[in-house]
Amino acid sequence: MNPPTAVKRIEGVLAPVVTPFRKDLSPDPDRFAAHCRWLMRSGCAGLAVFGTNSEANSMSVEEKLGLLDALVKGGVPAAALMPGTGHCALTDSVRMTREAVRLGCGGVLMLPPFYYKGVSDEGLFRNFAEIIERVGDDRLRLYLYHIPPVANVPITLGLIERLLDRYPGIVAGVKDSSGEWSNTRAMLDRFKDRGFDVFAGSEVFLLDNLRHGGKGCITATGNVNPGAIDAVFRSWQTADADRLQAGITATRKIVQKVPMIPALKAIVAHFGSDPQWRTVRPPLTELEPGQEQGLIAELNAAGFAMPGL
Amino acid sequence: MNPPTAVKRIEGVLAPVVTPFRKDLSPDPDRFAAHCRWLMRSGCAGLAVFGTNSEANSMSVEEKLGLLDALVKGGVPAAALMPGTGHCALTDSVRMTREAVRLGCGGVLMLPPFYYKGVSDEGLFRNFAEIIERVGDDRLRLYLYHIPPVANVPITLGLIERLLDRYPGIVAGVKDSSGEWSNTRAMLDRFKDRGFDVFAGSEVFLLDNLRHGGKGCITATGNVNPGAIDAVFRSWQTADADRLQAGITATRKIVQKVPMIPALKAIVAHFGSDPQWRTVRPPLTELEPGQEQGLIAELNAAGFAMPGL
Repeated sequence: MNPPTAVKRIEGVLAPVVTPFRKDLSPDPDRFAAHCRWLMRSGCAGLAVFGTNSEANSMSVEEKLGLLDALVKGGVPAAALMPGTGHCALTDSVRMTREAVRLGCGGVLMLPPFYYKGVSDEGLFRNFAEIIERVGDDRLRLYLYHIPPVANVPITLGLIERLLDRYPGIVAGVKDSSGEWSNTRAMLDRFKDRGFDVFAGSEVFLLDNLRHGGKGCITATGNVNPGAIDAVFRSWQTADADRLQAGITATRKIVQKVPMIPALKAIVAHFGSDPQWRTVRPPLTELEPGQEQGLIAELNAAGFAMPGL
Repeated sequence: MNPPTAVKRIEGVLAPVVTPFRKDLSPDPDRFAAHCRWLMRSGCAGLAVFGTNSEANSMSVEEKLGLLDALVKGGVPAAALMPGTGHCALTDSVRMTREAVRLGCGGVLMLPPFYYKGVSDEGLFRNFAEIIERVGDDRLRLYLYHIPPVANVPITLGLIERLLDRYPGIVAGVKDSSGEWSNTRAMLDRFKDRGFDVFAGSEVFLLDNLRHGGKGCITATGNVNPGAIDAVFRSWQTADADRLQAGITATRKIVQKVPMIPALKAIVAHFGSDPQWRTVRPPLTELEPGQEQGLIAELNAAGFAMPGL
């Protein structure tokens, strides 16, 4: 492959977009595209569709490819898309990544293969290298997805180093969902000057991340609170930054009192007056009615809103 | 659905069959069928293809369906097959399970969806129930696959109870790869009289399992040592049983000193004089040369052989 050409990379707030399901549990491309358009006009710089909060791994590759195609046809700019394309199966990862590049997506957010635990960095390097080689396209921008609380398979600093050495420009960054600022900080200190864009996995760390050279955040609550989170991104060098950060952290803390994915869906259902949005696929379950009532009451008391939804 | 009709169930030793890959990492149906035929004539009562040791989750659904079709066309009796059909994605599990039933497989061995951790039994019940309902075929025999060290998502006794109450005859048993005899024993004590067949996940527990009403084992080393393990199954009520059990346990302990999946492939490669068998898919890696040499030397010293391979 030739050295990658310079293309403007995504910076700012990205939502790992929740996926709407119909009553028969099939994905609903129209509701999905409508929510994506709302996110893009409400503060999101990009959309990390098919993330953990998207129930991506609860869908087949075909279902995800259908949704991605519908989004692009539905007017969502491909350059703003950073779909999750990492699977346990090498061939699934290659297929989804190839299609994302073909559609012109701004990047892909890639989980490590997560079935086997305790695998070596050598094995993980081979996985990512094989995908990059098979896709074989200089337009690929690969963001590594470090989420040890769920995947249980980490992206270590040593693995990043090897991948950056071998595929500079293609290996474009990371989403750090470890929940440990010390780990995000270590990634920034070591790689931020190598064209490696670090995104915090929660807006709780957004201001810290930006102050240390990070590029934004990819955060669950970006699905419901994108405007306020984007305000921190746009104002981080102003005197108002800490106050704005405190506000989005407070909202986050309300939402994460209950299970995150059904909570996000309940919020979209409630504030968008669209009960079908509450549906999740097994093995997840909807919030209990009491949980949802408490969540909505707390959000209302805090003045939360989703304008234009 | 009508009550299931009586069909002879698989009992004895099953191998979670290792999957051969070509140099380009594509699955090799001819080598696969040949190994399956060797296993069936060497002591295996059944073949749990697409298990953990098969690198099943490192393959796409299409790749697995292609292999399954090749096996049946290659003369392996479908009634002896218990393919793994559980995926993170509900729709993938339905697709594979439906095809297994259509081909006449004796059963399916089903992982829980394993991406999300800490999910509820209610969510897991909905997953299995939805698959059973969508497949909608009385011929389905569903064996639950409990392997918390890898999947990190357990099959609890409470979940088994709910599934057995709702789908008696369809929910046919379990493979317990917890590695804890106390857990296998609890499953036996509670469910063995309800048409629920308990298979130990390692031959180390085979004799104990049979003495307490279990039906056999589904074990990694069934890939390389099926005859000796089957001898324990056939002789468990004889005076020779404990001695035979000690022998297969000793062999197991040699093999599990090194990573199991590449070890099994190295053994097949060595004793079958077919080096291509060593290939694994990322994120796994082959044994180091020193590891393999030590393994083979120990096996030779113990008189290990794979007659007819």
